[in-house]
Formats: sequence, structure tokens, C-alpha cells
Amino acid sequence: MAKDRLVVIGGDAAGMSAAAKVRREQSDRDILVLERTDYTSYSACGIPYLIGGLIEDSDRLVARSPEKFRSKYDIDVRTRHEAIEIDPVAQRLKIRVDGDREISEAYDQLLIATGAHPFCPEVPGSEAKGIFGLCTLASGLRVQEFMKQEQPRKAVVVGGGYIGLEMAEAFVRQGLQVALVERAPEVMGTLDPDMGKLVSDALREIGVDLFLEESFEAFEVQNGRAKAVVTGERTLAADIVMLGLGVRPNSELAAGAEIELGEKDGIKVDGRMQTSAPNVWAAGDCVATYHRVSGRPVYIALGTIANKQGLVAGINLAGGQAWFSGVVGTAVSKICDVEVARTGLQERELRDLGIDYAAAVIEARTRAGYFPGAGPITVKLLAEKSNGRLLGAQIVGMEGAAKRIDIAATAMTAGLTIAELIDLDLSYAPPFSPVWDPVQTAARQLLKKI
Amino acid sequence: MAKDRLVVIGGDAAGMSAAAKVRREQSDRDILVLERTDYTSYSACGIPYLIGGLIEDSDRLVARSPEKFRSKYDIDVRTRHEAIEIDPVAQRLKIRVDGDREISEAYDQLLIATGAHPFCPEVPGSEAKGIFGLCTLASGLRVQEFMKQEQPRKAVVVGGGYIGLEMAEAFVRQGLQVALVERAPEVMGTLDPDMGKLVSDALREIGVDLFLEESFEAFEVQNGRAKAVVTGERTLAADIVMLGLGVRPNSELAAGAEIELGEKDGIKVDGRMQTSAPNVWAAGDCVATYHRVSGRPVYIALGTIANKQGLVAGINLAGGQAWFSGVVGTAVSKICDVEVARTGLQERELRDLGIDYAAAVIEARTRAGYFPGAGPITVKLLAEKSNGRLLGAQIVGMEGAAKRIDIAATAMTAGLTIAELIDLDLSYAPPFSPVWDPVQTAARQLLKKI
Repeated sequence: MAKDRLVVIGGDAAGMSAAAKVRREQSDRDILVLERTDYTSYSACGIPYLIGGLIEDSDRLVARSPEKFRSKYDIDVRTRHEAIEIDPVAQRLKIRVDGDREISEAYDQLLIATGAHPFCPEVPGSEAKGIFGLCTLASGLRVQEFMKQEQPRKAVVVGGGYIGLEMAEAFVRQGLQVALVERAPEVMGTLDPDMGKLVSDALREIGVDLFLEESFEAFEVQNGRAKAVVTGERTLAADIVMLGLGVRPNSELAAGAEIELGEKDGIKVDGRMQTSAPNVWAAGDCVATYHRVSGRPVYIALGTIANKQGLVAGINLAGGQAWFSGVVGTAVSKICDVEVARTGLQERELRDLGIDYAAAVIEARTRAGYFPGAGPITVKLLAEKSNGRLLGAQIVGMEGAAKRIDIAATAMTAGLTIAELIDLDLSYAPPFSPVWDPVQTAARQLLKKI
Repeated sequence: MAKDRLVVIGGDAAGMSAAAKVRREQSDRDILVLERTDYTSYSACGIPYLIGGLIEDSDRLVARSPEKFRSKYDIDVRTRHEAIEIDPVAQRLKIRVDGDREISEAYDQLLIATGAHPFCPEVPGSEAKGIFGLCTLASGLRVQEFMKQEQPRKAVVVGGGYIGLEMAEAFVRQGLQVALVERAPEVMGTLDPDMGKLVSDALREIGVDLFLEESFEAFEVQNGRAKAVVTGERTLAADIVMLGLGVRPNSELAAGAEIELGEKDGIKVDGRMQTSAPNVWAAGDCVATYHRVSGRPVYIALGTIANKQGLVAGINLAGGQAWFSGVVGTAVSKICDVEVARTGLQERELRDLGIDYAAAVIEARTRAGYFPGAGPITVKLLAEKSNGRLLGAQIVGMEGAAKRIDIAATAMTAGLTIAELIDLDLSYAPPFSPVWDPVQTAARQLLKKI
């Protein structure tokens, strides 16, 4: 088994976590990694900070280069190798090399870790120059290159999710005039609107022009270059456009091999990360996963999840036994000084699931009120009425606010009730927290409503 | 019942939390609070920062003044009233007013919330001027007053616990030359020595002279004033001495009424905060509590616990039903830029309990390695070998490190295993964390040892 050939498609978080884990367990395993870009194991989440100038050197985003995997891990990493077809019966791959010639390789075990791509609706002008989405490091470098060469002055961000917001901040940092278009009443649709409003306010505060409740309709193009973004209400001039409309799984390759897809066309996998095809596994942004709070399938593309799934796949591919337990939907972001975090289910999801819930929102301080640097923090908690079980948490606040979401993520995973949350022996000292942690203050408020 | 008289002895965290809760539930209840100092509801934890000059006005430490309790809560708060005797049969108290005359008051229900006092060993010279311990706001103001008037240049801190360390920092901030004497090999005895060493280093870094493994033997006194601290090894000149040898419960009043005491002479209470005497309740730093991880009684004096116990006592005193579930031993502190946190049991306690455990220590970064401001963080985790259950966590690191202890506190309370800790869907973005939170990196390391 150890000499069996493992082929991994995709050399970022999930793929390389798995490959490295297999190598640690099986020193003589034949491991081939196919990566369509020039880079492996980079932090896609760091790209907005690279473009914003907070990080100066793109090399710093690369945790381990292809050379390092070859020399230190004895893993045969081939860059500019794009898998274009899987034959699950013959257990062979068709691969395009350097965007040009085609080769074929055999596998005994295959891991699909092809990631995701930014969603771009089919609107007029979408092929024009100056329109970008972010997914790979290569795509981030293209934005950086464009900004250096073209010196854009006006940026329009389409979509107010994490990437949209982080890129709006990056453009502001680089001195651009920034407009952001969002169809919903507030940005950050993974928060309830009352919490999203706080984030909208934070964006306005740093000088972003928000156009909320406006649909994105088209690009205006001149000489093959995007010149403006057209919404249902107006035309916004743009020297550069960033798409932040979410991502879609790169699951076409799997679909072409008749491997079963799941939620939002993410590749369907079991807890061990096995697909419907024999000897074919998948992990990371290309797969659908399981939500531990709702008990339903869900598609969430995040680096933490990709790393964990890669590790689980690696253990199993090396002959071990591991399961990925699913997610609770934790995410965190920062808009200049304002921290934003969420976990669990939001009101809309609870309504859709028909769960009878109560909600409480409280305002507190990040530290003891008298301590220097104490800033505002708003916490929203959601719990099930019939049993008091914590179902979701959302936090917006200043320094020290966001990481508190981990208390709620841990509590939800363990199935704690609001009363048990109040009972938690959380850390307190004046530089860190009020004597009742704001999460517990919210829980106390919520308890009255259940 | 509502017109029955509730008397509360002690007007800080536990006492006033209870009194305020009873008032919210019972608008016509007769509530009398006896406070021996001039202050109510102040943050004792803020006192080192007041003395260090981080907080300028002592009024800011007072959450709610006696006047406010009288006018807004209709609670009869009497300051400079010290209860000196409880007659649990007659249900009467003997009270000393203004340190002078004595009066007597009847109660229907009594809550003892007398707090704690700094431990001072019986050594020669301990009655001299210039020797301080911290517990009440009044004691803090005495230190502040002494420093203004006497302008001390050399401070000696005896004991390297939280108060000792925070006071060492406060003295450094005020420009004093500071020595600290600690009997153990490292400061912060609530950490294992390997982690305590990091804190010792941080103290040296800010200029504190550490004298470790030295016993404290006596004070040298001149004209009634402390002039030096004598250890087993040397004599340390001192213009001011701060005792940081821990606190002891103010339980003499209860003991005098033959109310049962428990761990370390803390008043013994049940989960509802009832003592062994009918109609007598107790809460806060004067009571012994229950450790949820060891399942044993424990004495821990902390503001969070006092507030929670006060709330529980208040609910029960108002005719409701609430229980205090105990503690897991969470605590957090800051020595200038270095954050220190701990929860659960430490190695010594695990050995004493005869629990077969494994430990792992890892070094990581507080943010993504490439993100500006990423600082070092060291995490130690302890787990039970037979079942993988998390038993303890200790963290030392830069900004953002310490509050992560709440993940472990929550996980321990819920009885999670190390494997379940690794599975947690914790928050990640480059400004907040590496893609594997350091707590999970430690858990991965620990899993290999179990």
C-alpha cells in the first residue's frame, strides 16, 4: 500500500495538508501533487492585506514553496499542471501542462483539492480588463500588478461579504476612492441586519461609499477595459472592480467524472472525506460539508476548514481513521479597527428551519469600563426557546471583541444552554474584560426572553 | 416574605450583586446593607492600575456608590458599619458604627459577603508603617496616599502571585526600583514552573529584581517604619512593602456564630449559597467553592466568582431557584505587554489527585505569522491519559494571547476531549490567529502523547 501512488489535485491548504500528513505517516509513499499555478501552501486569506500594503512581500504569504515540498518532504510537486479529466475506472488523469500540452498520469488514490473560484454573474462586460476576483495567490498578484501599472483612482467593490469588505479596506489604504454595491439592506449578509448595520457604519466611517439595496447589473466597457459598474439605480465610475459575490466550488472536474455533488455543487464527501467514486477523496473549498448546529449540509469555503479536512483526508489516505466533524459556521474579520465575528445560525436560517428562537443584543465594553482602551462591543446571541440551547452568536466591536466568538463556537459544539453559558468560569481582569464577559451579559439578557 | 428584612454584610461585588438582584425581583423588600468602609461596588481588581497611574481617578473604580444604591435602588446602605457578631438563634447582629459605638439589628435573612484579607505571616516588624496588602478600595487609597506623601524610591513585593505581579508593574510604572521575593522557583505559582518561568522573564524584562527560592523572614523596622525586607538570603532595602502572599477569607464572623467552614476556612455553602445556619447565606471571597474539574472543594477569591455567587444568592433570597455550579480555576493577568492565563488543574494538582495525565507545550504566533503585530504565544495543555479529557491550560504571550484561555475553560466545563478540541470550528483571519489556533496546535501535539 505504501508504494501505491497518491495523486493530489491542488497544492494549497487542503491538498498540501493532506500530502504532508501522508508523508509524515508513510515515508516511502509515492506522492504526486498537481498545481495549476506557480504556488503552493499560501494564505489566500492574506491577499487583501498584501494588496492593501500591510504585508509588503508576497513571499511571506507562502508557508511552504514547491521547492520545499520537493526537498524537505520528498513530494513530487508539479506546478502549472492542471488536471482536466478524471477517469475513475482506469484511475487515470488527463493533465494540461503549461496551459498547452497534455499528459496522463495514473493514481491508486486520488485527492481532489481544487478549491473555489469567485462567482461572477453573467452580465454584459464581465470579460473586460480591470475586473478581478480573488481566490489564488496568482489572482492576488494580478490585482497588485494592475494597481502598480494602471494606478487606478476609483475602485468599485461588488458585494459586501468578507472579501468585499477586506478589499474595500485595502483600496482605502492604498488611497483609492471606494464604492461598494450590495443588494441586501446591510453588508455582511452572514450577520443579521441589525448587526450588519454596525459593519455598514464602520465602512462609511473609513470613507467607503455604500450603495445598499442596489442590484448589480452590468459593467460599462471602453476599449476592452471596465470603466463603470452599473447598478439598478446608477452608474459608478471604476478604474478597478473587485468582485466579492462569494465563491463557488471548483467541482466541474469531479462532476465530469460523475462524482456526486452536494450542497451548492460542492463535492459530496463522507466524514472521512471520501467521494462517491472508489479511491477518490476530496477536501477543502471544493467540497460540501456538514453544519453541526443545523444538522444540514452546508457549503462554506474557509482556510481553517480546508486545513482540517486536509489533515483528516491525509490520515485516512495513510491508512488511519479520522473523521471531519463538520462546522458551526465560525468566521471573523476586521474592517480597520472594527472587529466582526459570527458563529452558528442567523435569524433567517432559524426561521427557514422552523426553529422557535429568542434573540438578545447587548452593548458592553471590551475591557473594564475604567481601563484605558476599553472600546464598545455589541453581542447578539440566539437560542432555542424550548431547550435554551445556544444556536448562534454575532459580535461587532473594537480590539479584543471578535475572538470572544470562540466561546460561543465551543459552547455550541458542546451543546451548552444559555444558562450553562452564564455559569462558565471565563477569564477576567480589567485589561481584558468587564467582570461579566460581554458574551455572558448577552446570555443573561437572553435568559429573560426564553 | 417580601417585607421580611434582608441584611447583607459587605457592600462589594457579592453583596451588592445580591442586594440589587433582590431589589429587581422584590420592589418592596426591606434591604439593609452594612459596609465597614466608605465604598460600595468597587473594582478591587482595578486597584493596582490606580496605583500604577493607568487610571487617574479612584471614583472610576466605583461602579455604584452608596448614594446611588439608596436613591436608585431604595437599598438602605450604611457605610462605616461593621458587623461584629451574629446571633443566629435570635437572628440579630451586633454592629460597630464608625469604629466606635455599637448597635444591634435584626434580620430575617442574612447574607454574609465579607470578602477576604491579604495574608500576612506573623513575622517580626509586621505592624510597622509602610507595609501594605490590597483588598478593599480603602486599602488601595492608603497605598496611593502613602506614595504621594512619602515618595518611596524602593519597593519590595513579597510574593509572586497576581497581586504581587500587578503591584510590581504598578511600582515600575511609578518609577520605583522594585524587588520581588518569591519562595518558589518561579513566580505565578498557579502556573506550572515551565510556564511560570516565562512570566519571571517578563518581570525581569521590565526591570524587576527577582529573588526566587528565597523565604520571607522578617521586616526591618526603624522608628516604626519598615526599612527592609529580610529573606533567607539577604536584606532588601524598602521604602514601601507590598504583600502578595494571597488572601484569606473573612470568615471569623461566621465562625463566631458556629457556622460551618470549609476549604481554607472559607464559609461552607451549598450550591444555592446557603450556610449551615438557618436563614444565613454567604457569597464571594469569604466562601469556599467547588472545582468542576477536580470535583473537590477549593478556595479561590476572584471578582467574577463573587459576582456570580452574589447573583445566585440574590435569586434565592428573592424566592427563586438558582445554583452556583462551581469554578474551573480560570484566571488572567497582564505584566506590561505579556499576557498570562490559566484554567483547570496544574501538574502539581494532577499528581496530588493521582490522575495519569499528559502535557504538551507549543510555541506559536498570536496572528498569522506574516501579519503585522504577530507576537509569540506559548500554550500548555494537560489531558487525562485514559480518556483524553482536557484538564488544564496555561497561556503566556503577547497581545491577544490570554483571552484564548476561555476556549479551554468552556471546553473543560463541557467535558470535551483533546480530539474534540481539535475539531472545534474556531475563528480565523490573519489579524486574529494562525489558521490553526495555538490552542488547537497544542491539542494536536498533546494528542500524540496520549
